[in-house]
Amino acid sequence: MNTRAPVLAFDADDTLWHNETIFEDVHERYRQMLSQYHDAATVDRTLFATEMRNLELYGYGVKGFTLSALETAIELTGGKISTAEIRQLIALGRDMLAHPVVLLAGVAETLAALAPTHRLLVITKGDLRDQERKIAKSGLADFFSHTEIVSDKSEAAYAAILRRHAIAAPGFVMVGNSLKSDILPVLALGGTGVHIPYHLNWEHERADPPTTAQGRFFTVETIRDLPDLLAGLGAHR
Amino acid sequence: MNTRAPVLAFDADDTLWHNETIFEDVHERYRQMLSQYHDAATVDRTLFATEMRNLELYGYGVKGFTLSALETAIELTGGKISTAEIRQLIALGRDMLAHPVVLLAGVAETLAALAPTHRLLVITKGDLRDQERKIAKSGLADFFSHTEIVSDKSEAAYAAILRRHAIAAPGFVMVGNSLKSDILPVLALGGTGVHIPYHLNWEHERADPPTTAQGRFFTVETIRDLPDLLAGLGAHR
Repeated sequence: MNTRAPVLAFDADDTLWHNETIFEDVHERYRQMLSQYHDAATVDRTLFATEMRNLELYGYGVKGFTLSALETAIELTGGKISTAEIRQLIALGRDMLAHPVVLLAGVAETLAALAPTHRLLVITKGDLRDQERKIAKSGLADFFSHTEIVSDKSEAAYAAILRRHAIAAPGFVMVGNSLKSDILPVLALGGTGVHIPYHLNWEHERADPPTTAQGRFFTVETIRDLPDLLAGLGAHR
Repeated sequence: MNTRAPVLAFDADDTLWHNETIFEDVHERYRQMLSQYHDAATVDRTLFATEMRNLELYGYGVKGFTLSALETAIELTGGKISTAEIRQLIALGRDMLAHPVVLLAGVAETLAALAPTHRLLVITKGDLRDQERKIAKSGLADFFSHTEIVSDKSEAAYAAILRRHAIAAPGFVMVGNSLKSDILPVLALGGTGVHIPYHLNWEHERADPPTTAQGRFFTVETIRDLPDLLAGLGAHR
């Protein structure tokens, strides 16, 4: 392994495998369930407000989402939602947790190409067990030297990970689909961020792209572009 | 710091602070809510069966408990539970997450006494954010060099922690209230287990005490007995 090569850390949901598509599918069923009471925009807005109100207590992940969806459904129907529908919502949450892991195009071969020359990490947030299960199911676990599951991707959380693994920020590249969670905190620490946008983006993860951090912030269309980008980075050092 | 001193790892819930008392209080309100439908034993048995069925998907912690309690309440009432009561159950779950952290007697002074001469860890399972919040609220965080929040306290999980921190099993002492989660897997790896029984014990955590592991398994009444026990261990080396 080239010890000069940067350590590469990957976000998981919507970077390595599809996730927001599963949420979007559940959102659509949820809107239908409540459509006799409210229009889709009201349902979406109220659910998002509940999620944000509960975020501090629940954290990220499917279980907190399910509890917030139940709470919102009772609120939006004035308590008229049936227990059969509540049961359906609980089952929908379980289905999300049991959902197969579908890798994004190019992920397996790109990781296989990078692993011999780079130390690879996963840094993800959400329910501990759910993220562990997805990594295990993904078939990618062996590519990674460590998996870090954090409750929030704050600058402090990244700083703690860099410290724990004795990684210097200039030698650290974070790859992910969320500007807010994967890129901005890493740039703030002096690391490099590679943004790979996903076609869906949860409202909470939206952020403006960085205006500074020249030479440390890149956007690529697919993970397949990563090896060339890294080769270019190395050439400029 | 005495580098010959063993590394001491502490379970959190019901070892450092009260937890099962909070669950027991919620169980009691839950039984009352369902008492017009079923006797307490049926409620307890059915809820426990739901929790065990969902454990693989939900993992440990308050959010999974709340979802299982909702599912069981709908089942046990044949769907007759009101949405107002469902709302109450969701609020009870949130109250559990927001509950103040109440330390067990002797915890703060014992950790303060041990910290100058021992490396101290926390190893706990459950919801990531909930456990992080409790550690932050406990006022104990500064005593610990690391906090490990795992989805299950299996032998493999302990082995990974020992590897990560470069701790040899013979120099590792785990302190906790659960024979099943805190003691047996650590003994199996060659470490030492100190059992401090709590007056309540979730059915899932019950296990028989180990019959072998002489000289590596101890039971004490309170965490206050730990320094003397450790001094005795050192004297026999």
